[in-house]
Amino acid sequence: MQIGLVGLGRMGANMRDRMRRAGIDVTGYDQNPDVSDVASLADLVAALPAGERVVWVMVPAGAVTHGVVEELGGLLTEGDLVIDGGNSYFGDDKGHAEQLGAKGIHFVDVGVSGGVWGLANGYGLMVGGDAAQVERVMPVFDALRPEGPREEGFVHAGAVGAGHYAKMVHNGIEYGLMQAYAEGYELLAAKDIVTDVAGTMKAWQRGTVVRSWLLELLVKALEEDQQFEAIDDWVADSGEGRWTVDEAIEAAVPLPVITAALFARFQSRQEQSPAMKAVAALRQQFGGHAVKAAGAPVAGDTPSGVGSAD
Amino acid sequence: MQIGLVGLGRMGANMRDRMRRAGIDVTGYDQNPDVSDVASLADLVAALPAGERVVWVMVPAGAVTHGVVEELGGLLTEGDLVIDGGNSYFGDDKGHAEQLGAKGIHFVDVGVSGGVWGLANGYGLMVGGDAAQVERVMPVFDALRPEGPREEGFVHAGAVGAGHYAKMVHNGIEYGLMQAYAEGYELLAAKDIVTDVAGTMKAWQRGTVVRSWLLELLVKALEEDQQFEAIDDWVADSGEGRWTVDEAIEAAVPLPVITAALFARFQSRQEQSPAMKAVAALRQQFGGHAVKAAGAPVAGDTPSGVGSAD
Amino acid sequence: MQIGLVGLGRMGANMRDRMRRAGIDVTGYDQNPDVSDVASLADLVAALPAGERVVWVMVPAGAVTHGVVEELGGLLTEGDLVIDGGNSYFGDDKGHAEQLGAKGIHFVDVGVSGGVWGLANGYGLMVGGDAAQVERVMPVFDALRPEGPREEGFVHAGAVGAGHYAKMVHNGIEYGLMQAYAEGYELLAAKDIVTDVAGTMKAWQRGTVVRSWLLELLVKALEEDQQFEAIDDWVADSGEGRWTVDEAIEAAVPLPVITAALFARFQSRQEQSPAMKAVAALRQQFGGHAVKAAGAPVAGDTPSGVGSAD
Amino acid sequence: MQIGLVGLGRMGANMRDRMRRAGIDVTGYDQNPDVSDVASLADLVAALPAGERVVWVMVPAGAVTHGVVEELGGLLTEGDLVIDGGNSYFGDDKGHAEQLGAKGIHFVDVGVSGGVWGLANGYGLMVGGDAAQVERVMPVFDALRPEGPREEGFVHAGAVGAGHYAKMVHNGIEYGLMQAYAEGYELLAAKDIVTDVAGTMKAWQRGTVVRSWLLELLVKALEEDQQFEAIDDWVADSGEGRWTVDEAIEAAVPLPVITAALFARFQSRQEQSPAMKAVAALRQQFGGHAVKAAGAPVAGDTPSGVGSAD
Repeated sequence: MQIGLVGLGRMGANMRDRMRRAGIDVTGYDQNPDVSDVASLADLVAALPAGERVVWVMVPAGAVTHGVVEELGGLLTEGDLVIDGGNSYFGDDKGHAEQLGAKGIHFVDVGVSGGVWGLANGYGLMVGGDAAQVERVMPVFDALRPEGPREEGFVHAGAVGAGHYAKMVHNGIEYGLMQAYAEGYELLAAKDIVTDVAGTMKAWQRGTVVRSWLLELLVKALEEDQQFEAIDDWVADSGEGRWTVDEAIEAAVPLPVITAALFARFQSRQEQSPAMKAVAALRQQFGGHAVKAAGAPVAGDTPSGVGSAD
Repeated sequence: MQIGLVGLGRMGANMRDRMRRAGIDVTGYDQNPDVSDVASLADLVAALPAGERVVWVMVPAGAVTHGVVEELGGLLTEGDLVIDGGNSYFGDDKGHAEQLGAKGIHFVDVGVSGGVWGLANGYGLMVGGDAAQVERVMPVFDALRPEGPREEGFVHAGAVGAGHYAKMVHNGIEYGLMQAYAEGYELLAAKDIVTDVAGTMKAWQRGTVVRSWLLELLVKALEEDQQFEAIDDWVADSGEGRWTVDEAIEAAVPLPVITAALFARFQSRQEQSPAMKAVAALRQQFGGHAVKAAGAPVAGDTPSGVGSAD
Repeated sequence: MQIGLVGLGRMGANMRDRMRRAGIDVTGYDQNPDVSDVASLADLVAALPAGERVVWVMVPAGAVTHGVVEELGGLLTEGDLVIDGGNSYFGDDKGHAEQLGAKGIHFVDVGVSGGVWGLANGYGLMVGGDAAQVERVMPVFDALRPEGPREEGFVHAGAVGAGHYAKMVHNGIEYGLMQAYAEGYELLAAKDIVTDVAGTMKAWQRGTVVRSWLLELLVKALEEDQQFEAIDDWVADSGEGRWTVDEAIEAAVPLPVITAALFARFQSRQEQSPAMKAVAALRQQFGGHAVKAAGAPVAGDTPSGVGSAD
Repeated sequence: MQIGLVGLGRMGANMRDRMRRAGIDVTGYDQNPDVSDVASLADLVAALPAGERVVWVMVPAGAVTHGVVEELGGLLTEGDLVIDGGNSYFGDDKGHAEQLGAKGIHFVDVGVSGGVWGLANGYGLMVGGDAAQVERVMPVFDALRPEGPREEGFVHAGAVGAGHYAKMVHNGIEYGLMQAYAEGYELLAAKDIVTDVAGTMKAWQRGTVVRSWLLELLVKALEEDQQFEAIDDWVADSGEGRWTVDEAIEAAVPLPVITAALFARFQSRQEQSPAMKAVAALRQQFGGHAVKAAGAPVAGDTPSGVGSAD
């Protein structure tokens, strides 16, 4: 099987390696000539067999992906296939499919999970598109997915968009799982009678209900830095968590846990919370409660007036 | 009507004033001789008519209230009445009632709302206890409550404990209301097309659905400091919000809004969140995501890798 | 002052009345001839002075408003002004302003609060647009807003879109406020020692920190039906709460209380929660926990196994 | 090694089997003579070597555990050891330790995870108490814990109470994890383009970030009943989730995800939500919004009035 791969960043380069190990004939293209196999997208297309070309796009979601899909639309011909394996918004897939479909070019979307561990462990794959096109790329999917039964690391989830949708939900769940472990960690660390927090989480790895790959990673992180002293509490979000909540609101699905995890990240990035300044100001107004002047230290955390209104 | 008042702090002193203005004969006692009318609790009891004594306790909840109730139990006699108007936990009331009841002394609990504004506006009163005892103190309640129909500023909510329980719920609601306004404030302040945030909230005071006394206070605070520049986002909690959530858990009542408001206060007091450090550490493990070293500045807030696992 | 008013539903008809009482010369148009002053939108435009025409649009947000704005774009001429007073999404305002602006027609957006009570009490008004255009309509705003200082019932919040944005935030806050009172109500109603729930909330109307217009309405509702026996727990949402949360996610503003209130409404409309079915199924798998078969009654709510994994 | 085991219910009986397989000499006692090895607790004590007796208690938390600990206090003698392996509240441990300690009897608390799967897979063990006592029982812990490195299935977490505290936090995390998967499931199931929900979750088992034992169980449950048609959305809670939130409130630790998961369970058990009835009643008051009469069907879920106050 022959395939073109556009985008050889951290993920793309690893995926090229894993495909090649499985005997797939990969031609990779990247703007960075040091890692690229060909000089241009046109060269990549030229290196593939006309009418049977398969090009896997692995570039940043949004504008970059739009640009590559458009350029491929001009280079490929009827019967060819474009796969978007990036972190695209699932709502973009339909447009890409129609844009390419107008020229007889097929489209499949793939949500890829696994991060830096994927090269060694394989990538979890969630695929959307027509069954025939999905079948056509199966050797590549089999190369990328983890060892073991195919259905435990690969799914044809549904129509175009379903692959990225499934990946989006996967990431939303991930937010919730991470926050759940993190809250538990904080509770353990807050308790004086618990003298071995890292050891406690380590001991959850076998036999317990909460064992998971994320727990293993957390244990690894704790072993490297038991108090997380070298790390700030600032947490980015990549966009997929936001899409998940947007989608929940669109579908009127209550999503308290995943949303709380997203908001905790927003909160983590605020030096000062405007909302909590407002609450502090309000308390000062109605109760004569002590407030903390900006920048000042605070004595205790539970002042309580008699008959206080708060 | 004659009454003894124990505790002449900010609330107690104001309440003495308001009672006296209404013609109630108040003897106040406080540890601070500068504000006290008598030299001791025993003197206060001696100043009241035996068998008809009414003593209103207005001291810090918990140990101090327990101590005063116990001391009064030794000084008062059958037929007397103790009123706890402090911010006591409602669960304490039953014990106090039984302790005093063993000596034939009556007990009534009162939740008092109004803060520093109560002297001028009157205090909202929520009362628990036997109807006959509540009726006995009605002149005092009428003196303390706001002008207007009695039932709009006073309620005999139920049995012993019901007054403090009602006050506890009142405060829980208050947490939710304050946080709702604060969140709205932050959203307004975050939007470039909104150029008059304070003016917008000011304009909600008449005709809108969200008009309230708390809104008026927030407008006042905004007029004093439009960006809340002089105020820190650190917010204390007085304990009643915690009791409200504890009670919800005990009763299996879902309480998402009030609990979120309480947690926002906890969050506001953390310099660094251990939980979010754990999430940051986890992301670093699985995705090679950039994290912020403790104390370091951060460039942007939405780094996004291609095919990233987050 | 002369004005055209498009849309004479519940809100529009009341607003026409209120304007007329204040001496504004209103020509109203509605598809329903029984309430309309003229036979068509063209007739309405013809009834107004060219170059000085002001048309207030008060029709359903979305497609209907788009249609009316477009039609007015064809009928009005340079210097005229269109006001959108409906519940439009603030993001639509910029497009409407540009569309009309291309023909020299001005645009102002107004968020209107007050519901069925507005006719008697006046409407809270939040306005976006150019200062000169806002000034031009001031007599109408003064007619619609409540009695009292203008700035307590009216605000020029900012640029085009700011009026609807402010209204959106107002409604988001409203969700939070309502849910806070509702949670408090449920806690009161769940407590045996509280024997007068309605009376307790009624007594919060004066002197307390939680007094508000919404509280008055809740008291009114409780007086009509003390147990809410005639009412289902199904709660609709009008879209503005969803926009508020969407906007928070866009702006990375944590919004736990307002979002919890929105999710509570989603939840209220589910006969069966797919998520909670999944949780029940999970518990059955790992712990051999009893689950409730679909449709079956349940004995108690806290079964507890020894050493149970849950 | 010889041990007495009190309580041979589902968990206790399995644990006896697993101990015996490892060569531990177990004498079991249960009120049910069909499963008991001895006729009474006194007989069990008599069967063990004085001064070296170790008795593992595995009975329902609360009153039953209190009773057994008290009875053992009367039967055992100095130097003996009682282990509480039930789901006791960690706060009870200190009292039990002191009660037994007064007679020179040692106490160790153990949180046991693993449910019905523990017999085959081993039990995750979290232990609190003095190091010497913990060491004394190590052969039993080694028999019960899963295969593999000891520290991945066993921890001496800290002082008396730390074992049950760690188990409590473990269960709190579990609530959050389950709810995260459940929310993701609901989102997948709500989306038309996703045609294979069960297959999608099945495909997450290898290579993805969200792989875990709970996910495997959810896949198993989905394979048995793809729509969860036979299962109700009613979810019990065992108490440990409540303790976790109580503890968070006590320690002022924000716990949004775990609390949301707990509240979702409370919600799942309500036929009608009093809070949402109150919200519906409020909307009816201020906006003239349609409400659903108790028991009536509803047409759609997003009625929207023009200029509506909601």
